Amino acid sequence: MREAYHVELDQLAQKLAAMSAQVADAMEQATQALLGADLELAERVISDDAKVDEARADCEEQAYALLALQAPVATDLRTVLAAIHAAESLERMGDLALHVAKAARRRHPDPVLPEQVRPYFSEMGKIAVRLARQAEQVIRTKDVEAARSLETDDDQVDDIHRHLFTVIMDRDWPHGVAAAVDITLLGRFYERYADHAVSVARRVVFVVTGKMPGYGTDDI
Amino acid sequence: MREAYHVELDQLAQKLAAMSAQVADAMEQATQALLGADLELAERVISDDAKVDEARADCEEQAYALLALQAPVATDLRTVLAAIHAAESLERMGDLALHVAKAARRRHPDPVLPEQVRPYFSEMGKIAVRLARQAEQVIRTKDVEAARSLETDDDQVDDIHRHLFTVIMDRDWPHGVAAAVDITLLGRFYERYADHAVSVARRVVFVVTGKMPGYGTDDI
Repeated sequence: MREAYHVELDQLAQKLAAMSAQVADAMEQATQALLGADLELAERVISDDAKVDEARADCEEQAYALLALQAPVATDLRTVLAAIHAAESLERMGDLALHVAKAARRRHPDPVLPEQVRPYFSEMGKIAVRLARQAEQVIRTKDVEAARSLETDDDQVDDIHRHLFTVIMDRDWPHGVAAAVDITLLGRFYERYADHAVSVARRVVFVVTGKMPGYGTDDI
Repeated sequence: MREAYHVELDQLAQKLAAMSAQVADAMEQATQALLGADLELAERVISDDAKVDEARADCEEQAYALLALQAPVATDLRTVLAAIHAAESLERMGDLALHVAKAARRRHPDPVLPEQVRPYFSEMGKIAVRLARQAEQVIRTKDVEAARSLETDDDQVDDIHRHLFTVIMDRDWPHGVAAAVDITLLGRFYERYADHAVSVARRVVFVVTGKMPGYGTDDI
């Protein structure tokens, strides 16, 4: 019984890791669609989001079944609950990648971003995808140190996000209100995505160490 | 044993209802601080957010204890898990009210909003607070019909939120980029707050009916 339980728990972790990979791919492609005004790629991210939603429902169902049939306690219980939370965060990351793709589609064939801010989004996109891939590794390896390293990457996203505001609010900003509004929303999507990746990693730390690292609040 | 269990479950529901009232108050005060450039009120919302975080931790702890000690199944299990999800959404609503208050503080003593868009925020604020109070009632009464009525209010927030974009992106928008950026973020905070309120109500419907109403995605 206990062994069957751990096999199922391991399956659940594998599913969550796969979901992390899915949302990493989604954000990678969404960023590429955004920077390259690539409609086809944007459409792919948009249609693929249903798979992330399915994966989340699947994880949640398996977690419920584990709780109902095995009634785990202590660390085992914490692990299942962390998995439920992680699945929720990962689904949200998929939604945020979807929003980036929708922005690319909405303005197509025009590029969404003025040349001046493209490097910031290229960088935020890279870090966001790296964070999701790190979350995947943390789920697979339960490596607490690796989980902590996500915080540094998240800080970088926050720094770029904050800097973006000074760029668009500069009185010499030449690209108008519509571009500034798009940039504001897109910046927030990346920032939230990164926060959720950190939150997934924190849940793993909680499972391993029994202590929850301080809750982050998104600044702004 | 079963009776003790239901007493505890009922206590947990009472705590969630109280949390809903807390975040309704927070958004009511934050909106008032925003519209009235009221620094003192903004500060109060900001410092009170810690209480929402504590309430969430308390709910989560009680839910964990229920799962570990009572190993509920079927509807009882679904109820506890719904409570965990609801506590997460409610904490997030508190964060969003906090963001509104921080925007008011950041621009103080200047008003954040140009006169032209104040009615939109006044209206979104009213509906958002109403949604949180309805969520409170739904938790207390488990009234499925009342839960469904939240969707209509949420649609109204979405409509106003969408309309705001046409206002600020109009080529004759006279208030500049900084105001447009603030409005973009604030609009999103209200829209997300309303979404979370609906999500809390949907979890209650799930517990009562065994069916999850379709997951909403935030448009944009």
